[in-house]
Amino acid sequence: MRFRLDIEYDGTNYHGWQFQDGLPTVQGVIEHAIKQFCGIECRLQVAGRTDAGVHATGQVAHADLDISLSAFRVLEALNHYLAEDPVVIRAVTIVDDTFHARFGAVERRYCYTILNRLAPASLDRHRVWHVKKTLNIDAMQAAANDLLGTHDFTSFRASECQSNSPIKTLDEFIFHQVGDYLHAHVRAKSFLHHQVRNMIGTLVLVGKGKLASTAIPGIISAKKRSAAGPTAPAKGLVMTGVGY
Amino acid sequence: MRFRLDIEYDGTNYHGWQFQDGLPTVQGVIEHAIKQFCGIECRLQVAGRTDAGVHATGQVAHADLDISLSAFRVLEALNHYLAEDPVVIRAVTIVDDTFHARFGAVERRYCYTILNRLAPASLDRHRVWHVKKTLNIDAMQAAANDLLGTHDFTSFRASECQSNSPIKTLDEFIFHQVGDYLHAHVRAKSFLHHQVRNMIGTLVLVGKGKLASTAIPGIISAKKRSAAGPTAPAKGLVMTGVGY
Repeated sequence: MRFRLDIEYDGTNYHGWQFQDGLPTVQGVIEHAIKQFCGIECRLQVAGRTDAGVHATGQVAHADLDISLSAFRVLEALNHYLAEDPVVIRAVTIVDDTFHARFGAVERRYCYTILNRLAPASLDRHRVWHVKKTLNIDAMQAAANDLLGTHDFTSFRASECQSNSPIKTLDEFIFHQVGDYLHAHVRAKSFLHHQVRNMIGTLVLVGKGKLASTAIPGIISAKKRSAAGPTAPAKGLVMTGVGY
Repeated sequence: MRFRLDIEYDGTNYHGWQFQDGLPTVQGVIEHAIKQFCGIECRLQVAGRTDAGVHATGQVAHADLDISLSAFRVLEALNHYLAEDPVVIRAVTIVDDTFHARFGAVERRYCYTILNRLAPASLDRHRVWHVKKTLNIDAMQAAANDLLGTHDFTSFRASECQSNSPIKTLDEFIFHQVGDYLHAHVRAKSFLHHQVRNMIGTLVLVGKGKLASTAIPGIISAKKRSAAGPTAPAKGLVMTGVGY
């Protein structure tokens, strides 16, 4: 039986999604919970292998488990064994073998949040990037629009990226301001390693006036990481959903 | 010089607002920061002495400090010394001696958040009350409407409450649903100890169908704590603002 898991987590204290022997990872604690409730050692397949400190409200994984339990029972059992961890299974669905959490995904959505005010963050300190200087959001949106479409995103790609190709298609990049909070909603079939955070880091330079809002096409065509801005902190990033 | 401080904090790891010798409290860490930057031992006056685990985005306090520094310098210095604490000074304003953070307040606003879904909270686990059973929000709003106005709120008053009178006037109680989140916005000149959390605990019984939506007038007239529902957890409560 193939079980689809819809997962939410606070990534603050994890070494990212991916299992690493002896280190706390999101994959590790979920696989451990599965083993505790049904004795099965499984390896989850996941839509997005988020980095250390990155959160999720809409992560999707699947597990093949040779058990005859309802999806509801699996949900309750997993959340029981995950009770001490800030990792929650939002939903469990029995799917057929054609479903694949990673290779079947046609859309991945992220939200990056910036707290744009003089005073640091308190309640949200693990979930936002605090930027003191008032950002020019119109300039940031204009620059973001130049990232849309199909490009060679080498300039926004981490050196350790394992993707076969640097060519990706960015379908959405919308800034949405709510009080002092600036949310960037980003959507693509898939992303390069650190691509969202590198795009955000670059657009914040635009918002601060340190980079022209027209600079993006030149940065893309440079095809080198040093042409773009710094990597924005992991804590502001949330994986919000996956489309199949 | 009297300085008004607008304060935001994550109350999770504090024994409430009020100074207690040897225990971490919000008042304690701010008074310590003041002492560190200007050497003055002062006692803050505050609009709302929040309980352990209760948060704030709009708390207001004042301090009398015999210093000749701009409000901006005080803001920067305090946030510098508070950098390790999830306590942030959002604004500092020089006010005249007629301003009093506690006695001058004519309105206090709180927001209580319930996460109403099967799956527990993860990212928001310190900021919401997780209620599994689907709540009837219309019934809760109808019951909340009966709390509005001037009443003897003895049934919603903690035994340790130090208020002179149990008679209070509740000006607003509005539920606002956003996805799985249910926010209750509550406003009054002042509240009894635990009044908001006791009202929420009672209204959740209404939402679960364990108490009739018409039960509030009877609970008020009973004038005893045992007539109302349990005290909702502190973590769901945020002090959002004060009016002067």
